[in-house]
Amino acid sequence: MPDKPFDPKTVSLDEMRALFRELPGPDLEAGTQAAAREAQLTKPRGALGRLEELAAWLATWQGRHPPRLQHPRTAVFAGNHGVAALGVSAYPSEVTAQMVQNFVAGGAAVNQLCRAFDADLRVYELALEQPTADFTQGPAMTGDDCARAMAYGMMAVEPNLDVLCLGEMGIGNTTSAAALACALFGGEVEDWVGRGTGVSGDALEAKIRVVREGVERHGDAGDPLDLLAAVGGLELAAIAGAVIAARLARTPVVLDGFACTVAAAVLWKVDPKALEHCIVGHRSVEPGHSRVLEAIGKEPLFDFGMRLGEGSGATLALGVLRAAVECHTGMATFADAGVSGPA
Amino acid sequence: MPDKPFDPKTVSLDEMRALFRELPGPDLEAGTQAAAREAQLTKPRGALGRLEELAAWLATWQGRHPPRLQHPRTAVFAGNHGVAALGVSAYPSEVTAQMVQNFVAGGAAVNQLCRAFDADLRVYELALEQPTADFTQGPAMTGDDCARAMAYGMMAVEPNLDVLCLGEMGIGNTTSAAALACALFGGEVEDWVGRGTGVSGDALEAKIRVVREGVERHGDAGDPLDLLAAVGGLELAAIAGAVIAARLARTPVVLDGFACTVAAAVLWKVDPKALEHCIVGHRSVEPGHSRVLEAIGKEPLFDFGMRLGEGSGATLALGVLRAAVECHTGMATFADAGVSGPA
Repeated sequence: MPDKPFDPKTVSLDEMRALFRELPGPDLEAGTQAAAREAQLTKPRGALGRLEELAAWLATWQGRHPPRLQHPRTAVFAGNHGVAALGVSAYPSEVTAQMVQNFVAGGAAVNQLCRAFDADLRVYELALEQPTADFTQGPAMTGDDCARAMAYGMMAVEPNLDVLCLGEMGIGNTTSAAALACALFGGEVEDWVGRGTGVSGDALEAKIRVVREGVERHGDAGDPLDLLAAVGGLELAAIAGAVIAARLARTPVVLDGFACTVAAAVLWKVDPKALEHCIVGHRSVEPGHSRVLEAIGKEPLFDFGMRLGEGSGATLALGVLRAAVECHTGMATFADAGVSGPA
Repeated sequence: MPDKPFDPKTVSLDEMRALFRELPGPDLEAGTQAAAREAQLTKPRGALGRLEELAAWLATWQGRHPPRLQHPRTAVFAGNHGVAALGVSAYPSEVTAQMVQNFVAGGAAVNQLCRAFDADLRVYELALEQPTADFTQGPAMTGDDCARAMAYGMMAVEPNLDVLCLGEMGIGNTTSAAALACALFGGEVEDWVGRGTGVSGDALEAKIRVVREGVERHGDAGDPLDLLAAVGGLELAAIAGAVIAARLARTPVVLDGFACTVAAAVLWKVDPKALEHCIVGHRSVEPGHSRVLEAIGKEPLFDFGMRLGEGSGATLALGVLRAAVECHTGMATFADAGVSGPA
């Protein structure tokens, strides 16, 4: 996280822009130590495939060897969207707050996943009673509001977290994410719009129309952070803030599905190195997710046909990360075990 | 498992063949109960994708709803191969026993994975000092030896296991598995032979030659169980036995990589329904694995570039299975949580 918290009264997007100059790079020494140990473990070289890469990635971005996974956290950000009133979702806006209550009560998917993988779950509400403005009529947020949401998201990062899984809840936010992705990366509006929670027919047509109007109105609003303010959402801004704060705190990040990845992609568009400390848990069935993954060059761990959000696909990755760390730190070396190496 | 253990003195492949008439089918009522509950949980329908399918699959093949995952076991079978003396592996045959010692001492990858996912690890040695015969000169095993190994494998199944992950260790066994797969499914020898633990050049040429000689000599040896005896291995036969025993005991099975899946595919070739209680944990980089997966119609959970064997890819799946069970059993319903359904 930044050295001192931002003042919510005065925080601005320019303060956020300044953070890009402070992003730490990889700890190459930790990465080298990981590679050296991996070569001695009782298995053919490279035989654990991506598990080996994940152990090295954790070491490199935690800035220590061996990597640890004692304190994983899942942070879910919830926000409401002005465009939800335009008939773009299968669910009413009230569901955002209802699902937050479900998170608090322990009844959602992400609760079960956090319990399964011993993750600490934090849920952050972003003024649910104050949705962003309808971006077909004007900007969704002011720059200052967007910066304030980013600063709020930074609070999810605390010292001693070993990994941060990110997720979102917000009725209407795949509409916002589609507009943001199209504004960031171009292409046809239709290619960025999917069924979200399950829209079809008129609602899907409305969603495409709303995204198109948003992109046409705000596509030249400025740099990626300006676009985030213009067509994004409070929870998406918070995710972008959390990703930056995690980088500053040397906390590796696991991203979730479409909305979450698009929020992080704002940072990639500012500086492609800004997401080197991030992996993506799963490939959502939301078609825009594959497009944004291709744009930012990330291959997710799972392809399970999931489309829930709320950090579910990110949290699911914790099992694989734990496996990677346990193998890397717990396996015997050829010398220890008295196992013959290759002839 | 079968009602009473087989007598190792008299057991025959015909006794194994008789078991195919006793395989229980799916518990459709448990599957229906799983689907009914899934539809009430606080998420858009189908939004957990493959996790939902896995919960239903567990219920269907455990024969109960809700499904449980309190007692997972990983069983690793180790055997040696006559063909290992023909220069087909990067490692000497002694490594099989050395790795078994490593399993016992807790130093292998599968030990760490079992610890990560609270699985009970059992390691079964199949007379490591008595490798199968060189199948380029005659059958690897007699039918009775093969049946005895299958019966031994059945011992891995005990009452109250919730899922059984299977794996193998045996220097030379990707050579045996390639010959077995080619004999079962046809195609070009070269397409079934991969680098195994890491062979190339002359060793890879030797491996291809050995597989070709085995297939030419034994390709018409009889039914799939006869082929298993002719070119298979003791640990591969044990895996086939364990898969049958698990079906009889209503224990769902997770298969591992190339050698393990080919061993199970022997049963599929006898009766395609015989593997309905099995999923496959991961897609190995061993090219024959993708071919056999296509033949038996299974899509693995992970594609992580792994090629270790020893049950590592199967055991890794336990995290996902646990996630599936926790979500299915622990999530609130729309009614419980007071969350609005779709408009």
